[in-house]
Amino acid sequence: MLDMNTKAMYKLSYGLFICTAVDGDKMNGCVTNTAIQVASDPNLISLAINKSNYTHDMVVKTGECNISVISNDADFELFKHFGFQSGRDVDKFADYPKSSYAMADNNIPYITAGTNAYFSLKVENMFDLGSHTLFICKPTFMTVLSDVQSCTYEYYQNNIKPKPVPVGETPKGETIWRCTICGYEWVGEELPDDFICPICKHPKADFEKVVR
Amino acid sequence: MLDMNTKAMYKLSYGLFICTAVDGDKMNGCVTNTAIQVASDPNLISLAINKSNYTHDMVVKTGECNISVISNDADFELFKHFGFQSGRDVDKFADYPKSSYAMADNNIPYITAGTNAYFSLKVENMFDLGSHTLFICKPTFMTVLSDVQSCTYEYYQNNIKPKPVPVGETPKGETIWRCTICGYEWVGEELPDDFICPICKHPKADFEKVVR
Repeated sequence: MLDMNTKAMYKLSYGLFICTAVDGDKMNGCVTNTAIQVASDPNLISLAINKSNYTHDMVVKTGECNISVISNDADFELFKHFGFQSGRDVDKFADYPKSSYAMADNNIPYITAGTNAYFSLKVENMFDLGSHTLFICKPTFMTVLSDVQSCTYEYYQNNIKPKPVPVGETPKGETIWRCTICGYEWVGEELPDDFICPICKHPKADFEKVVR
Repeated sequence: MLDMNTKAMYKLSYGLFICTAVDGDKMNGCVTNTAIQVASDPNLISLAINKSNYTHDMVVKTGECNISVISNDADFELFKHFGFQSGRDVDKFADYPKSSYAMADNNIPYITAGTNAYFSLKVENMFDLGSHTLFICKPTFMTVLSDVQSCTYEYYQNNIKPKPVPVGETPKGETIWRCTICGYEWVGEELPDDFICPICKHPKADFEKVVR
């Protein structure tokens, strides 16, 4: 058997979405790239959410969520706000501008800034896939919000995510660690075990020592 | 409850793929837009295939397939060959150029022309979703074939699919039927019930009478 080239995984295309949910008083949302139509009769949308997301637990519990489709006019702040922090630690809607979201008929917020459509979904089935749960959902409402093109994961990588700047030679010849996913460079002898890349959120395991 | 604007469905982003399978002597393949990674640990790829596709039945029976990722250098012939005819009627590999595909370790062909990667998949689970079956698959092999960008459904619509040309006024003022999906126009008093749009494959129900 030949070795797998896991770079092939990056050839799959994805849109980008904010999945929002409500549990009691708590509103929350996370970034996901996995919403697609999986059947046409009946119309069904599937959604795979990482179990480590707080939103995941809320969707499992309530069986409902909204999906706002991120468009190319979204700024990096949207991704940072919903993707780079957890609803377990912060209330993502406490400081979120009221002009950037609205409440849908299902009493779950949807994002109105940097998005071009939203769906209200009811979970019909859930499948445990290990790291993720796959939700099979029936749309109960959907509408178009703008004509701006949908943002693909590739567009985000090339045009929205800040490009990491290589630190170059350090004055004292210190060790440099580079994130093999996004290129972010960190200066210091030993990368802490719990280090998370501030740009792409990948862990220490994805960093390599730079030899110059 | 507000009316749904089903145009929102077009805001979801997709890649495009040739799904190939083998049953006995018979090799076949179809176009699909539904391959995505749905879990990372273990690594799982989901795939929704319309039950009307012959390839669907082969994957159900054998539990195996390959997914070739279509890239932006693919021509319309690739889509026509695998998407606009059924393996029930023609042997898609009988006349397919030997230089445009190869056999993977699992003895299933993969497409080498107009693609940038391929995956060999083993079906772990199947879910009946009505019009489609959702296959949850484990990749047993994957590799990159080229650096050309992956073709999204949107890129295909804008750059690969031929643009239908409106027929304009007909000399005798005949009735014109227009496909509301792709704009293809057909001249004739009554559109046959089994009419299928030659460009986008949508049925009679998606045609409207043109009033000029």
